[in-house]
Amino acid sequence: MLSFKDFPVGRRFEFPSRTVTAKEIIAFAREFDPQPMHVDEAAGTASILGGLAASGWHTSAMMMRMLCDSYINKTAAEGSPGVSAMQWKRPVLAGDTLSGHCTVTEARLSRSRPEIGIVRFVAQVINQHGETVALCDYANMIRTEAPEAAAHAHG
Amino acid sequence: MLSFKDFPVGRRFEFPSRTVTAKEIIAFAREFDPQPMHVDEAAGTASILGGLAASGWHTSAMMMRMLCDSYINKTAAEGSPGVSAMQWKRPVLAGDTLSGHCTVTEARLSRSRPEIGIVRFVAQVINQHGETVALCDYANMIRTEAPEAAAHAHG
Repeated sequence: MLSFKDFPVGRRFEFPSRTVTAKEIIAFAREFDPQPMHVDEAAGTASILGGLAASGWHTSAMMMRMLCDSYINKTAAEGSPGVSAMQWKRPVLAGDTLSGHCTVTEARLSRSRPEIGIVRFVAQVINQHGETVALCDYANMIRTEAPEAAAHAHG
Repeated sequence: MLSFKDFPVGRRFEFPSRTVTAKEIIAFAREFDPQPMHVDEAAGTASILGGLAASGWHTSAMMMRMLCDSYINKTAAEGSPGVSAMQWKRPVLAGDTLSGHCTVTEARLSRSRPEIGIVRFVAQVINQHGETVALCDYANMIRTEAPEAAAHAHG
């Protein structure tokens, strides 16, 4: 398990790549963001997005999965108080392949809970053309000592 | 259809309420945020969250649906460039009932595209105890004139 000391400023974690399908875009949008350009191919093509486009929140959710797979699920992490910026810079269209990375920008101990470090990151989601589609500035709470691995095993 | 002129500073839109089930929390988390406290009841109860808790991104996605149902899907909206703050202030636990509202905090015309207004909102998601669980500061691009309704009909 990684703990606070493993997150010095500048450390970078690479994301696994993931291809987004029209089916996934439509399923997410029907449940959470039923705007025409996210649920209908023709409406997406007619919009300024230029095609069936993932909801920004879907892109963010896919980014979260990449964060889990790149470091969170092997880290003594205790969640996040939130995000100080989430930018959707370009459309994510059906068939796009996403990857990217996140980089530590700040690491400090919590004032109120000395067993916890606050680690700030910038995450960058990149498409198959090398264009940044999303940027996120967020923080994680990470324990200074990893508990026994068993306590963090998935149920 | 609502257009830019319908979004003066201070206007507030109420969210419909929604009860979150354990099944929904686990399904979202298995796909997008497979951390133990989001996919396993016992791990959630043992965590600082105090129960099976929705991923913050799941809470954000549910908020987006509330925004669609409260105003976006009857507005000549052209999406969002992003979010300048997304705070997850309290856990959202299985069985919680969420509601809330969003309020216009700023409204101005785009400098580069005069047919578009930039409207900034604060959205607040509230649980059945009256506690704020999430706060979001975001902007929407909204047309100054609504196009024909048919162009925005769902596919």
